[in-house]
Amino acid sequence: MGVMVVGSVAFDSIRTPYGEAEDILGGSATYFSVAASWFAPVRVVAVVGEDFEDRHLQVFQSRAIDTAGIERAPGRTFRWRGEYSQDMNEARTLETQLNVFEQFQPKIPPSHASTEFLFLGNIHPALQLHVRRQLPGATLVAADSMNFWIVKTPRELAQTLKAVDVLIINEGEAKMLSGRQNLRQAARAIQAMGPRKLVVKRGEYGVALFNDGDAFSAPAFLLDEFKDPTGAGDTFAGGFMGHLARSKDLSDANMRRAVVYGSVMASFAVEDFGLRRLLALTAEDIESRVHQFIRLTHFDV
Amino acid sequence: MGVMVVGSVAFDSIRTPYGEAEDILGGSATYFSVAASWFAPVRVVAVVGEDFEDRHLQVFQSRAIDTAGIERAPGRTFRWRGEYSQDMNEARTLETQLNVFEQFQPKIPPSHASTEFLFLGNIHPALQLHVRRQLPGATLVAADSMNFWIVKTPRELAQTLKAVDVLIINEGEAKMLSGRQNLRQAARAIQAMGPRKLVVKRGEYGVALFNDGDAFSAPAFLLDEFKDPTGAGDTFAGGFMGHLARSKDLSDANMRRAVVYGSVMASFAVEDFGLRRLLALTAEDIESRVHQFIRLTHFDV
Repeated sequence: MGVMVVGSVAFDSIRTPYGEAEDILGGSATYFSVAASWFAPVRVVAVVGEDFEDRHLQVFQSRAIDTAGIERAPGRTFRWRGEYSQDMNEARTLETQLNVFEQFQPKIPPSHASTEFLFLGNIHPALQLHVRRQLPGATLVAADSMNFWIVKTPRELAQTLKAVDVLIINEGEAKMLSGRQNLRQAARAIQAMGPRKLVVKRGEYGVALFNDGDAFSAPAFLLDEFKDPTGAGDTFAGGFMGHLARSKDLSDANMRRAVVYGSVMASFAVEDFGLRRLLALTAEDIESRVHQFIRLTHFDV
Repeated sequence: MGVMVVGSVAFDSIRTPYGEAEDILGGSATYFSVAASWFAPVRVVAVVGEDFEDRHLQVFQSRAIDTAGIERAPGRTFRWRGEYSQDMNEARTLETQLNVFEQFQPKIPPSHASTEFLFLGNIHPALQLHVRRQLPGATLVAADSMNFWIVKTPRELAQTLKAVDVLIINEGEAKMLSGRQNLRQAARAIQAMGPRKLVVKRGEYGVALFNDGDAFSAPAFLLDEFKDPTGAGDTFAGGFMGHLARSKDLSDANMRRAVVYGSVMASFAVEDFGLRRLLALTAEDIESRVHQFIRLTHFDV
């Protein structure tokens, strides 16, 4: 049942033109699990250090996220420091301390073997594959990746791609991975590598979904306030997978709906620093924004 | 009746990663009028030189475009040479010969006084205002502009903005004109300058429409073939204004429909160099792509 995420838990220090935050809870598994928790039961598999306090664990537990898979290792938690310039499209990394994340070996608690929806956050593709193989009966397996693995570990990534159903990556990464500038052509090339479903994240411009032969394109929600893009992609993935896990419906129509829920969750994430907005949501906020999203995009001919 | 466009007629020489073309018929008024001609009667006001041949005029006449407002002046027609790099988002201008366009003084034939829908292509804002004032009874007046006028002629542009209903500009230009990075904030700032309707062209990412308090965002059609972006913006404007002139309906719902028709026409324009694809269309091609566009963007929650 439910959805499981394997990825990073981190402390982020972020500066954007709209403010800054020091050592706030972040990481791919964190954004994903908080977002997905609005839709379905969530299990998180990650590693943290000795500086990870009970109050941090309580952030997950306040959303009823199963933290049995959060391993505490000797040393410090992964830390990232970055800043965004005016256009907010790309982070400039000022400092990365991998710390305990460097030796991360995901351990799946036996209680998690029944997981139906699995999200492999952006970690070494060999680790992604290792986790994926421990859940052979999963209904749907999605993975993220990044430029670094595309360039540095292409063979391992190719193996992982053969073993997942959905790849969720940025537009630039899709072009790099496929060697194609045209998005439709890039999608076909990536689908031929394994994942029959490809989600291309286009930042402030929205998301494109290629589901076998079906293509869906949705703009992003237009926000009045946009303070911090950190975690938007993983928040999207959390809403997307959370909705699928809730509905257990892999039809084209429902995959499109999942893109909308993911987009809506990401739109909340970027309104404030870190998890602040995601943790203050209500179910009504989400439904209300889904309806605003419909209003923003609807037309009839 | 119908729609009138004032703008440039040019000979373009274009190189993209997908090929090149020499001295092909282009210009804002050309792309606009050919696109709009699929929807409504079109009148074009422009200037050409002695090198403009009957076969060029026949391109307009083959689409039943009224060319009474095309003035032939001593000298050569406006010429532009540019190239696009791999990402196709921005043209690099290699050469501009304004030629007869430099002294362009739009002259509206008396027969055009009944025009209901007017598009002021990207020319000096003082000329735009001059034309606009000659059609005081127009139902809807739209204008394009560009960075050059925003920087060089801000006072003239401010006067023109007060006298038009719709501004149709690129996203970068909207941000520059408003001094705002956030699109919703930029839109409000521009609406306060005059035009209650703002269309923001986002290139391969689509279009956003701000119609008084209403906001609509549509992605671009996802093309397999994308050869030459030249004229895409004016082609969009032609489909947008053409649909409005055909339907004479300025409701929110119909403005959104106009964005879809504009986007569909632009998607054809970029599939081949110059006007080639736009001139080879059939009404069935257009309706078929409208339905593909619906299929690409539709979701229900």
